[in-house]
Amino acid sequence: MSQQVLDYIAKNKNHFLESLKQVIRLESISAQPAKKDQVLKCADLETKILKEIGLEHVQLISTGGYPLVYGDWLHAPGKPTILIYGHYDVQPPEPLDLWKTPPFEPTIVGDNLYARGSSDNKGQHFSHLCAMEAYLKTVGKLPVNIKVVLEGEEEVGGGGIDKYVREHGKFLACDAVMISDTDWFDSERPAISYSLKGLCYFEIGVTGPSHDLHSGLYGGMVRNPLQSLSWILSKLKNEKEEILIPGFYDDVKPIAPDERKDIAALPFDANKVAEGAGASRLISEGTFSSVETNWCRPTLDICGMWGGYEGVGSKTIIPSKAGAKVSIRLVANQDPKKIEKLFVNYVKSLSVDGVKVEVHTHSSGIPFHVERENFFVQKTAKAYETALGKKMVFKRLGASIPIAAVFQSVLKVPVVLIGLGLPDDRVHSPNEKMSLPNFFDGIKGAALAYEAFAEENAKFKS
Amino acid sequence: MSQQVLDYIAKNKNHFLESLKQVIRLESISAQPAKKDQVLKCADLETKILKEIGLEHVQLISTGGYPLVYGDWLHAPGKPTILIYGHYDVQPPEPLDLWKTPPFEPTIVGDNLYARGSSDNKGQHFSHLCAMEAYLKTVGKLPVNIKVVLEGEEEVGGGGIDKYVREHGKFLACDAVMISDTDWFDSERPAISYSLKGLCYFEIGVTGPSHDLHSGLYGGMVRNPLQSLSWILSKLKNEKEEILIPGFYDDVKPIAPDERKDIAALPFDANKVAEGAGASRLISEGTFSSVETNWCRPTLDICGMWGGYEGVGSKTIIPSKAGAKVSIRLVANQDPKKIEKLFVNYVKSLSVDGVKVEVHTHSSGIPFHVERENFFVQKTAKAYETALGKKMVFKRLGASIPIAAVFQSVLKVPVVLIGLGLPDDRVHSPNEKMSLPNFFDGIKGAALAYEAFAEENAKFKS
Repeated sequence: MSQQVLDYIAKNKNHFLESLKQVIRLESISAQPAKKDQVLKCADLETKILKEIGLEHVQLISTGGYPLVYGDWLHAPGKPTILIYGHYDVQPPEPLDLWKTPPFEPTIVGDNLYARGSSDNKGQHFSHLCAMEAYLKTVGKLPVNIKVVLEGEEEVGGGGIDKYVREHGKFLACDAVMISDTDWFDSERPAISYSLKGLCYFEIGVTGPSHDLHSGLYGGMVRNPLQSLSWILSKLKNEKEEILIPGFYDDVKPIAPDERKDIAALPFDANKVAEGAGASRLISEGTFSSVETNWCRPTLDICGMWGGYEGVGSKTIIPSKAGAKVSIRLVANQDPKKIEKLFVNYVKSLSVDGVKVEVHTHSSGIPFHVERENFFVQKTAKAYETALGKKMVFKRLGASIPIAAVFQSVLKVPVVLIGLGLPDDRVHSPNEKMSLPNFFDGIKGAALAYEAFAEENAKFKS
Repeated sequence: MSQQVLDYIAKNKNHFLESLKQVIRLESISAQPAKKDQVLKCADLETKILKEIGLEHVQLISTGGYPLVYGDWLHAPGKPTILIYGHYDVQPPEPLDLWKTPPFEPTIVGDNLYARGSSDNKGQHFSHLCAMEAYLKTVGKLPVNIKVVLEGEEEVGGGGIDKYVREHGKFLACDAVMISDTDWFDSERPAISYSLKGLCYFEIGVTGPSHDLHSGLYGGMVRNPLQSLSWILSKLKNEKEEILIPGFYDDVKPIAPDERKDIAALPFDANKVAEGAGASRLISEGTFSSVETNWCRPTLDICGMWGGYEGVGSKTIIPSKAGAKVSIRLVANQDPKKIEKLFVNYVKSLSVDGVKVEVHTHSSGIPFHVERENFFVQKTAKAYETALGKKMVFKRLGASIPIAAVFQSVLKVPVVLIGLGLPDDRVHSPNEKMSLPNFFDGIKGAALAYEAFAEENAKFKS
């Protein structure tokens, strides 16, 4: 590793920070049409920064909505090509009255930089840009080929990049994708997330009589849609939290014994997690532990349900309609399209006479999984361990980052999710913050990782 | 039967109608505080009418809310005493734009009188007052002793009269109660309803985590209140519509073979009922017919349910809370207090770990049943058959009229529910109407019934 690069990083902390602050000050709230100018200004500022760093082919790529910010540096022949993904849009800051400092005026308190987008995702993806700058401003070149893609619609479900990646696989071709948009296991344990859930989201609608009926005049004679729906929903899971859809687990691989061992060795504090959720206790599927269930097993939740009279007091009716929303999180190897068919067929099979049952699919996303043994994963882990001075945890995540799976499935390359956030960063909430040590050490980590990827270039093509 | 009385009724149709119209014009909407004056004016007008008829001890009886209107005539020693119940309050007329004629300006179109309250219940109870007038203005006396009690809070659940009856059983002592507040079997078949359902109404609340959780970050680890609630609700009934609460059917008497035969002989048109409900078909409990289920078997309905996200699109959460409202209609011999205990214990027993389940009882009402062979029932049937020129149907009703059961249980007398409404009277809806032939023939029917009660006074004390 070039000492020049490390020195540059050490000496330019203030410069990096001021540059990041400029990006943070722009209110790039993709969900709010009134902030359109600010979102576009943020995209422009990022292109300006990519150019200043020394990236080439810097451009805005239109996808119909907010543009992708693109730049590359491809002068390391024989070395791997790394695609760095991040997003420049942020969540709305509301509710504003809960912010202790102005959400778009980055404010340093102690070791933290407070602002909307500081952790999710401006501070995190910026660490990579700073690492690139450190190389290009000192040794004048990068150890690997780099493509940067920053999205502006991540916080609004961004279908634009999904379509673009699927249609421009050649342009984005690379050997690995690196994303810093996740967090640590806890405040002392940095983490690579090597598995994310896929997602199927359904809405079930049950229609009975054409209008609400008197429960006395029609009771027992007309099928009740809420009762019918409860029969269906009650058979989605049993009390052991096992999903009852026939064939649902067919493609789920057992958790490898060494992975179970690794997970069991983690200092997962069930009481603390229950407390954070405000739940009386944690549960789990069958004989799996709670954390195994959340990380490694598909899960199913009823996210909403409605029907009939919801006001105060009593109203004695057989409602005309009932409905429910159901999210299913899938693990690696499960195909959302297959699960969708299984779910729809199962729900329809549970339908009773006298009501009409319809199932609508809202969205589906493929699960993501990368082998922990993968060359890029291992190199990244070592590099960041060195930079952060802390041992890396390999963890799964019960949540979904659909773009990671899209990169992997379209570009056929590993995706490394190296998180710089902390669990208490309050992303999506008031008083979001980024740990400054994490930001600065993250720059070092990225620099060390790029160099590590280049060192043994024969091995990455496995 | 005195021909004088019948002649008076025949000659005074217009006078009766004008008197009824005066009562109808008052907007006695007990649910709307702004109409308080109108409700009280209506009570005053009814007392005025009772006095004009020739009743004695006419008074307003305060029960805390709107007063009872009371009057009696007790100069038939050795003859039975009949308590006539009705209510002078009406449902709100809204939605007003659906009325074809002004709701409080009684309008005759063809054979019908259109107005709010015309059928429910001003026209129906007024038939009794007119019959009394016909006696007192001709022969100068009634064939039986009569007590009239008119309530002003029936449409708002009226607890006032319930308490009053329980505390003043001696004052209201009688040999039978007559109520005209029900309807015919169909447009050609007048009916006595000899059985009404009791009612238990519950609200179930399930609380899980203290706030909505991310279904990815907590899926499988935190118990879902909507899933937990669906497990509970799914076990209230099975798909054969059998109620699964242990002990629930213990006190339910089998339907007598002759009653089953009578019910089967009625021209109950399942297709027409399904069409009216906008349902694809009727269902029933086990091997009972649909009409047997609704009339003679206890029924259970989920009247409302809620929890989580009910808006458009997808929101991936484990909701913090879920709730449902459940109505149970009881048949004769079932005790609401006992059923309440069985229900609460059963629901609690279905509760799973990780959530808190609470059950709140909104209301309960005892079921009502009178023997079809009862002296007053039989006499009433014959009298109205003569007056209406149509054969009487004995039917049960799946709905509840709690005061009927209270009269029966407190005063220990039979209650005769002789309906003058037609199934298409649109009570509680816009364009409510009362059939004028039913109103006038109902006056005759009441007169003939009073006389029939007096004829064989030895038999009523059975």
